[in-house]
Amino acid sequence: MTIDFKSPASDKKLLEQDGPFTPKFDEKGLITTVVTDTNDGQIVMLAYMNAEALALTIETGIAHYYSRSRQELWKKGETSGNLQEVVSMHTDCDQDAVIIEVKMTGDGVACHTGRKSCFYRKVDGIGSSNPTLISEE
Amino acid sequence: MTIDFKSPASDKKLLEQDGPFTPKFDEKGLITTVVTDTNDGQIVMLAYMNAEALALTIETGIAHYYSRSRQELWKKGETSGNLQEVVSMHTDCDQDAVIIEVKMTGDGVACHTGRKSCFYRKVDGIGSSNPTLISEE
Repeated sequence: MTIDFKSPASDKKLLEQDGPFTPKFDEKGLITTVVTDTNDGQIVMLAYMNAEALALTIETGIAHYYSRSRQELWKKGETSGNLQEVVSMHTDCDQDAVIIEVKMTGDGVACHTGRKSCFYRKVDGIGSSNPTLISEE
Repeated sequence: MTIDFKSPASDKKLLEQDGPFTPKFDEKGLITTVVTDTNDGQIVMLAYMNAEALALTIETGIAHYYSRSRQELWKKGETSGNLQEVVSMHTDCDQDAVIIEVKMTGDGVACHTGRKSCFYRKVDGIGSSNPTLISEE
């Protein structure tokens, strides 16, 4: 890893301006990442990056994450062939989250269940006290 | 709060099926929420909900969050008038994140900086070791 991310500014106004990317990792050293498909803008997954994964993602243009369950660097698609090529990356006002728009290679699925998106279920029952999950794919 | 969310199943397959919504809150009692604008699908913010905020969001159809900085329930737009009406909610395979598609009322901005989206800056320099933030709005 060659990118040495600087610490976020304590001045909120500086954090919100243009300039160097100073990601704010949480107490576990992670930043939340929302992943969208460049073809249709659909949100396909949500994952986490540590500094190493974020640096590798930026430097190589291929999405890397940190697996919280396996506690290790995770190059998405390394075994499945479904690599994610980064088309663009955005960060939010306090630089504690990123969106990456990706081109999915291989069979174009992001979810381990074999679906394109991990968000394949709708929460039915908004406006009620009995929310139920219903698959849409 | 009237919704009493059941604990997530320990069997991963059950978690991934249709059925009751059993959100998996993290060790702080929070679930990550991605918020999109129903008009154009744009991701406008990322926030967190505790069980109370999630229940109120589902029951009332108006987005409620948990403010980590203020450590309190946060009905988005209560002071600004920019309420978010929930059009749909989706959850992911392990039920530890939700997406809500919202109709933004008031002046239609989600970010405290006055911009529509918190993700107003692009990380320029993908493929390099010198990422820089550039505003797009």
